[in-house]
Amino acid sequence: MTDRLAPNFNSALVTGATGFLGSHLAGRLADAGVRVTAITRPSSDPARIAGLPNNVSVHAATGDSRDLIECFEQAKPDVVFHLAARFTATHMPGDIAGLIEDNVTLTAQVCEAAVNAGCPALVTAGTGWQNAGSALGDPTPAPNTLYAASKQAADDIIDYYSQLAGLNAVTLKIYDSYGPNDPRRKFLAVLRDAAAKGEKVDATPGDQLLHMVHVDDLTDGFVHAGNLLSSGEIRGRASHTLPSSQAVTLREFAALWMSANDRHVEIQWGGRPHRDGEVMVPWEGAPLPGWSPRIDLKAGLKGC
Amino acid sequence: MTDRLAPNFNSALVTGATGFLGSHLAGRLADAGVRVTAITRPSSDPARIAGLPNNVSVHAATGDSRDLIECFEQAKPDVVFHLAARFTATHMPGDIAGLIEDNVTLTAQVCEAAVNAGCPALVTAGTGWQNAGSALGDPTPAPNTLYAASKQAADDIIDYYSQLAGLNAVTLKIYDSYGPNDPRRKFLAVLRDAAAKGEKVDATPGDQLLHMVHVDDLTDGFVHAGNLLSSGEIRGRASHTLPSSQAVTLREFAALWMSANDRHVEIQWGGRPHRDGEVMVPWEGAPLPGWSPRIDLKAGLKGC
Repeated sequence: MTDRLAPNFNSALVTGATGFLGSHLAGRLADAGVRVTAITRPSSDPARIAGLPNNVSVHAATGDSRDLIECFEQAKPDVVFHLAARFTATHMPGDIAGLIEDNVTLTAQVCEAAVNAGCPALVTAGTGWQNAGSALGDPTPAPNTLYAASKQAADDIIDYYSQLAGLNAVTLKIYDSYGPNDPRRKFLAVLRDAAAKGEKVDATPGDQLLHMVHVDDLTDGFVHAGNLLSSGEIRGRASHTLPSSQAVTLREFAALWMSANDRHVEIQWGGRPHRDGEVMVPWEGAPLPGWSPRIDLKAGLKGC
Repeated sequence: MTDRLAPNFNSALVTGATGFLGSHLAGRLADAGVRVTAITRPSSDPARIAGLPNNVSVHAATGDSRDLIECFEQAKPDVVFHLAARFTATHMPGDIAGLIEDNVTLTAQVCEAAVNAGCPALVTAGTGWQNAGSALGDPTPAPNTLYAASKQAADDIIDYYSQLAGLNAVTLKIYDSYGPNDPRRKFLAVLRDAAAKGEKVDATPGDQLLHMVHVDDLTDGFVHAGNLLSSGEIRGRASHTLPSSQAVTLREFAALWMSANDRHVEIQWGGRPHRDGEVMVPWEGAPLPGWSPRIDLKAGLKGC
């Protein structure tokens, strides 16, 4: 990975560093010599914390706003990468409070601590779903899930800190991602297990289009956004997407995985229905300038 | 008040009914024969709960999402008026969690309960500050305070429930308000106290323009929005403002109050500075169609 994008900043703070993207980003930054502070929460998986590189400083946040402020004051990051989030595709009433707390309240506390510490730059992960809720052609599409609505709400909070407190901030809206060291129970994990056990898989009709991006490409996008903020090429508030060069259907994606790994899984397409609010055609936003994914999908899927 | 707008719906649920606008709205609806359920919270002022009309059913919410859902199922309101909110002009880090919980989480829980109970219509109170954060002429002005950002975040949550779950919803953005039975410590309360005690008042330079609207006019706006939703004239998602017919400066407002009530207070204009993010010229949105304030400012201020 020596040809990967080099950071132009010296210190970074990463929330959500035990997550899929966060762990790759923290590792990449640390490898490049950036001083990295990772913020973990009581809910963070201890095994994933232990898996962070030794040269990453880990701060176990208590959830108290004062604790976060002091941590930022000590870390004095050049760039904050705020990736901590809670995902739920279909929420239950009892999920609401935790979803808002993890996705909105924590975002406000991170912005407050960043501004307080004089940190000028924040890059955060949004989702293409923030604009996936409406018929195609709607100029202001709404979120398609409460999760996506909570990410949109987080963006409003960042808007305030950007405009009133001078925080330069970029939201990078992610679509689908894949790659090694993925703790999420996604479709690839289902395929892998089914192949290992020789079992059949029931799937949706599989005609939904997906922007599948390798986690190394996404990591590039976050480093690049940090560089653009650090150099002053992006000032104020921006929002961009990190799409693949071409969307594929879930069926095409499954076929590419099987071909790349020389495995076969029998899939019953249409064996279960699409879920409510399923995105059939992704919303297309403005990709991050100067970034594009480099990893071919079939090549990237090899070994995944 | 017999000439005031009549509701065209039979039942309503009001959150924030112990607040300034909420208490007037609950009273007006109950007087007009609407079956009103008021939701109170542990933080609601007992004296204000006791002050609600006898024919208003009071449900003391526990904060549990299941409790709210059951309350909505029993009340089966035709229209929900969601006015519960936490206001803070200048926040401290320790305020963030409570501000988001009261303004965003509760909004999501109210929408969830409304959708679950088959309630088709929601009217909520927003603030002109949601768009007050930027230089004039910005087409997408940002919130000017964390409070306003949290109200904007609540609107995103409502967008989701409107688009994905079919909730018809109107946000009415309020500017400044005045009238009897106001529990808030606003400028008028300061003037009244100073007049009673013969004291001087230190004020900002006083040149900020304000849309001051009488609470009876605001109440009309909320009833009217409920009627438009109930009749189907508004469907889906809408957002409107409730401005005065003409903005006045704080100085003009003070002079009108003194003149209306034949009192004099010596005010040291410029005795203290404008606060950060002070709105000098209000953002002008799209007023609620078919509504306009009827109470002349000087006449309305008499006795306030």
